[in-house]
Amino acid sequence: MAKANKSVKTAVKAAAGKNPTKGAPVLHSIKGGKLVPAKAPPLKATTGKPAPAKSAPTLPDDMPAIALKLEPAKLTPAMAAYFKKCQDRLGFVPNVLVAYAFDMAKLETFVAFYNDLMLGESGLSKLEREMIAVAVSSQNRCYYCLTAHGAAVRQYSGNPLLGEQIVMNYRVARLNKRQRAMLDFAVKLTASPWGVEENDRERLRRAGFTERDIWDISAVVGFFNMSNRVAAATDMRPNAVYHKQAR
Amino acid sequence: MAKANKSVKTAVKAAAGKNPTKGAPVLHSIKGGKLVPAKAPPLKATTGKPAPAKSAPTLPDDMPAIALKLEPAKLTPAMAAYFKKCQDRLGFVPNVLVAYAFDMAKLETFVAFYNDLMLGESGLSKLEREMIAVAVSSQNRCYYCLTAHGAAVRQYSGNPLLGEQIVMNYRVARLNKRQRAMLDFAVKLTASPWGVEENDRERLRRAGFTERDIWDISAVVGFFNMSNRVAAATDMRPNAVYHKQAR
Amino acid sequence: MAKANKSVKTAVKAAAGKNPTKGAPVLHSIKGGKLVPAKAPPLKATTGKPAPAKSAPTLPDDMPAIALKLEPAKLTPAMAAYFKKCQDRLGFVPNVLVAYAFDMAKLETFVAFYNDLMLGESGLSKLEREMIAVAVSSQNRCYYCLTAHGAAVRQYSGNPLLGEQIVMNYRVARLNKRQRAMLDFAVKLTASPWGVEENDRERLRRAGFTERDIWDISAVVGFFNMSNRVAAATDMRPNAVYHKQAR
Amino acid sequence: MAKANKSVKTAVKAAAGKNPTKGAPVLHSIKGGKLVPAKAPPLKATTGKPAPAKSAPTLPDDMPAIALKLEPAKLTPAMAAYFKKCQDRLGFVPNVLVAYAFDMAKLETFVAFYNDLMLGESGLSKLEREMIAVAVSSQNRCYYCLTAHGAAVRQYSGNPLLGEQIVMNYRVARLNKRQRAMLDFAVKLTASPWGVEENDRERLRRAGFTERDIWDISAVVGFFNMSNRVAAATDMRPNAVYHKQAR
Amino acid sequence: MAKANKSVKTAVKAAAGKNPTKGAPVLHSIKGGKLVPAKAPPLKATTGKPAPAKSAPTLPDDMPAIALKLEPAKLTPAMAAYFKKCQDRLGFVPNVLVAYAFDMAKLETFVAFYNDLMLGESGLSKLEREMIAVAVSSQNRCYYCLTAHGAAVRQYSGNPLLGEQIVMNYRVARLNKRQRAMLDFAVKLTASPWGVEENDRERLRRAGFTERDIWDISAVVGFFNMSNRVAAATDMRPNAVYHKQAR
Amino acid sequence: MAKANKSVKTAVKAAAGKNPTKGAPVLHSIKGGKLVPAKAPPLKATTGKPAPAKSAPTLPDDMPAIALKLEPAKLTPAMAAYFKKCQDRLGFVPNVLVAYAFDMAKLETFVAFYNDLMLGESGLSKLEREMIAVAVSSQNRCYYCLTAHGAAVRQYSGNPLLGEQIVMNYRVARLNKRQRAMLDFAVKLTASPWGVEENDRERLRRAGFTERDIWDISAVVGFFNMSNRVAAATDMRPNAVYHKQAR
Repeated sequence: MAKANKSVKTAVKAAAGKNPTKGAPVLHSIKGGKLVPAKAPPLKATTGKPAPAKSAPTLPDDMPAIALKLEPAKLTPAMAAYFKKCQDRLGFVPNVLVAYAFDMAKLETFVAFYNDLMLGESGLSKLEREMIAVAVSSQNRCYYCLTAHGAAVRQYSGNPLLGEQIVMNYRVARLNKRQRAMLDFAVKLTASPWGVEENDRERLRRAGFTERDIWDISAVVGFFNMSNRVAAATDMRPNAVYHKQAR
Repeated sequence: MAKANKSVKTAVKAAAGKNPTKGAPVLHSIKGGKLVPAKAPPLKATTGKPAPAKSAPTLPDDMPAIALKLEPAKLTPAMAAYFKKCQDRLGFVPNVLVAYAFDMAKLETFVAFYNDLMLGESGLSKLEREMIAVAVSSQNRCYYCLTAHGAAVRQYSGNPLLGEQIVMNYRVARLNKRQRAMLDFAVKLTASPWGVEENDRERLRRAGFTERDIWDISAVVGFFNMSNRVAAATDMRPNAVYHKQAR
Repeated sequence: MAKANKSVKTAVKAAAGKNPTKGAPVLHSIKGGKLVPAKAPPLKATTGKPAPAKSAPTLPDDMPAIALKLEPAKLTPAMAAYFKKCQDRLGFVPNVLVAYAFDMAKLETFVAFYNDLMLGESGLSKLEREMIAVAVSSQNRCYYCLTAHGAAVRQYSGNPLLGEQIVMNYRVARLNKRQRAMLDFAVKLTASPWGVEENDRERLRRAGFTERDIWDISAVVGFFNMSNRVAAATDMRPNAVYHKQAR
Repeated sequence: MAKANKSVKTAVKAAAGKNPTKGAPVLHSIKGGKLVPAKAPPLKATTGKPAPAKSAPTLPDDMPAIALKLEPAKLTPAMAAYFKKCQDRLGFVPNVLVAYAFDMAKLETFVAFYNDLMLGESGLSKLEREMIAVAVSSQNRCYYCLTAHGAAVRQYSGNPLLGEQIVMNYRVARLNKRQRAMLDFAVKLTASPWGVEENDRERLRRAGFTERDIWDISAVVGFFNMSNRVAAATDMRPNAVYHKQAR
Repeated sequence: MAKANKSVKTAVKAAAGKNPTKGAPVLHSIKGGKLVPAKAPPLKATTGKPAPAKSAPTLPDDMPAIALKLEPAKLTPAMAAYFKKCQDRLGFVPNVLVAYAFDMAKLETFVAFYNDLMLGESGLSKLEREMIAVAVSSQNRCYYCLTAHGAAVRQYSGNPLLGEQIVMNYRVARLNKRQRAMLDFAVKLTASPWGVEENDRERLRRAGFTERDIWDISAVVGFFNMSNRVAAATDMRPNAVYHKQAR
Repeated sequence: MAKANKSVKTAVKAAAGKNPTKGAPVLHSIKGGKLVPAKAPPLKATTGKPAPAKSAPTLPDDMPAIALKLEPAKLTPAMAAYFKKCQDRLGFVPNVLVAYAFDMAKLETFVAFYNDLMLGESGLSKLEREMIAVAVSSQNRCYYCLTAHGAAVRQYSGNPLLGEQIVMNYRVARLNKRQRAMLDFAVKLTASPWGVEENDRERLRRAGFTERDIWDISAVVGFFNMSNRVAAATDMRPNAVYHKQAR
């Protein structure tokens, strides 16, 4: 478990970046190893009347993390520590973790899977993995993942426009050949997996990717095709704080 | 023409809102009735190395307004005045106007068409028209329109999340029944116009829309199906300043 | 306004061609600057019994121009003159104009926009612009535009088969390389605007199109993606007379 | 064979209607039991210059019946008689028959299959079967079948507009409930056969169709999904004369 | 009729192969020239409880051949003989024949059409025709045809994996260039017939197919696009015995 | 790790069922904690000549587990034990495990994730989870997963037809309301995740599923949308032995 703890640390550190959003609205707090949803002012349905931009606070999205009523389980010590670190460094616990927290076995395997994939060793930079996450989530129009990972692309790249472009249509981003080939593969594998063949892998190889890189691209594409669907199926809501990050 | 001038004023005023982005990067300046592109530092292709968020300035997108090499024409006095107002109030001339400025007849009819549609009298609020613009542009994955009109939704609604949600997937936004019916119609008309029939109009009527409202919804949907395609065909680039507006 | 009047003349003249359909059924007449729908014998629902071809008159389509109940506005003098010219030269006022006539500002901007686009100066012939109109409308299965602009292709080309082919599937028409590239671009831009990129523009350039031509192709594609949707949303009905023109 | 001959007679008679197009261009003639293609003036590729409508003759489409070079076989006596009847009554031999005439076994089974289906006993009128043929062919954008069977709908119904509407988008035709249910089923079965289930059959039953009628609808839908593909695969060209029929 | 009888013999022989499934469950028997459905134990709806694999018999699918209630007609002598041969050699009468047996004219033309196409002379081997049948049926997700013709591919090829692969996704099968080109054409013609053009035929020619071969490929593709739809429309059920054949 | 070992045991036991395929071809063997691919006779490309069914052995698919050249890592003791159990009880190590075995961290998290999901506690039976796996994989046309999990459905249900039906088109299976609702949700979430909303969850609740059940359905759908894409991207090959299981 030592190793897992270490990769958790790395993950939290990486996600926090150099600009931790201190004091951001906390939608959940942890009491006695249990998540307790924090109160937030209700978000009015749109009325059609333009509110004066000045007085418009960044309202927290007051909806629960997911639309399924699942009782949070007692956090294991490892998960309690992990959540505390998220809180300390990011200022919040990402709602995807809150969503999985009804079952510790599921939460722990999810965290291990995610951290190995997105933060572990790879020929792909962390930014590239996030770019894939966003391109896949754009194809699937996943609100949760576009919000959380769009913020990560803005943060890792230091280029807010790049994040917006991949959210909207990755083809308009000024990508180098390597990254364009990578995202073309990611979107084809998402939209029509049945049509991916050797010539698609060859195109990645010609763009400089190794066999292992191709695995990693595929694994990230696969992972977000999973997460996009869990998020859509449960109406998972991103923490409101993501919206303002790294603009 | 007096009336046109007036509607231009209204348009500029409305677009400017209460928060004009003074001092924003100006990508074009007007000299002797001609648009002159301003220099901007080149935007690096992504390198995969996370730049420190701190030092990341909002780089202007240094690409030209469109990918077609069309010589700007001499602005007519009316258009020169209109561009000046944009500059004064918004801090920039929207690139869609720069794009049309190779031909004054086209620019003037476009401006008249747009201002009547989006800023003229209607049973739809200006916010609602912008919501339609964004929902249509999301279906068509149009970078220019999602950026410019996504900013308008954030601004008019005073609800930055609402803008993001309609960019990503309007179904996740907490809309009232009227607005949900409106966007359902807009997206169906965009995706499969051949399938729109009397029962679709009836659904709008039941949601409280008048005959004229239905025309206006249809006209805005139509307009952005046009603009999305002109933007895609010409690789139209939104002014970088939109990205930061009303976050 | 003088210029506008002139382009209206040109438009009417061009549309009328050398074979004005005199005496065609008039579905609307103008009284005191207002459109008055003319009576027409009701069109029976199909009964399944073959009517003897001999006695089958060309029944006017007795449905109103659109399915929305919008009171016609008083025609401005310019529009009254324009409608009169349509009547004199075409033998009828196209229903799309009838549809917009509930609001003079909308009608005038629509007419100006349309005439500049379809009848103004361009590197594309009028036939080519009509071919684009029909190819786009075929993709969108738009009854109004296929009927009205299918007739225009038959008329301008003097080749009735060409009109039919583009209505049904433009790929079967024997087009030269320039026109094939033009329609391929038009249909791709219609069906998947998000996928249009520099290589698509390059293909047009290689086929001999200038930068301005590419704008014009894109603008016509955009316009009919708009009109197709306004027509679908309002159940716009083409004047019955189009069906027989230039067969 | 007597029965077959009889149904052939019926077919030819029905197809000929009351208005046989005498003197229409004959693209094939029969010499010694063999089809001999007739010369026809070449059809110019479109030039973009509007030809004067007046002088525009109805040019025969000078392309061969199909794009595959298949030597016509010697017509069997039954087929020779059938072709002669087509020639006598329709003024031409439909190109689909010319296409199959490279092999007498295939031609004879095709003719038998077709005549039983489209002209044999059924609870569906001949017009209804042709309406299905056109709705299916519109979904598949089949030039040959839209042309030949669009003419048949115009002829059988005595309502030229109905033919045009089903070619373009059957949803705009003013169909009674029975025929609307029939074409909805036909188009769903064409576009997504995997999704047709008991509730679709139930909808037909509620619209008044018997079990046998449902078989017949399905069989016609199936047949044109076959013919559309044979036509597309071979670039089958409709006889030019269809275009003018029953307008 | 002599010839027909002969081709029937060939068909039955070919279908029977070297491994006739003697003693297989007979779902219909023939009494006095009429089909009589045989009793079969009802198939339980799935309960979610894994049944012990040991005791699981191969239950016949007890559903009727099709979901339409059509009274079987009296078999003509030719058809009675044909059904008897099926019974003798295959051990069962394929349900597609049972389905058509409500009308002898339809049954006879179907049998003639099918036997000419799938068992007659051709440059395509019988296996290749079955491969096309399965690839088309996979695109259309047709349970009947995938089951019956998937068994035929397993049988003719002696390679059970090949049958499974074409049922699931023909792209994973290790095909030679000729067969890959053939199935690519078949699936494109099935999915988007409107897009098939000369370059598609050229690709087949380059892969070694003659003009006649291209006709035959197209005809088989067409035929199964028909049969898939008749099967879907009628909920046609494959004889349960196919499932076990040639595994 | 004790717990993990236990769940591994459960998994292997469950997968093995009552009918372990002893003596099945072993494509990999384990030597010194490393996987060593076993030799298998090459599988001939199809020749078009029907091989005599009699002599057709069940050829192992001689292709490597995946098309990426990734060096197997040394198995950790836990994974070596897990592989040994697979070998002992199933007679083979599933190729998906072989594929992940280039990296022990990835293999272990994959195994943990999979076993919790498919074999852990749930309101869904193991059969139901496998049914979802196959319905999702059918939508995505995934050869690997259709083969491996199609076998599992046949095995768990004791109903070989059910497995075939869900592979081909789940709509033809005779499902009870609960299972139909479950698979409808699974396929919609796979094909258009953006369109899944509260009414979709409500339909599951009405069919008797709890909040936790809905999570589990979603998680299984998500997981196979991931696995289908990893399999497609790497051309993952199912162990040939699956094809014959539980027929």
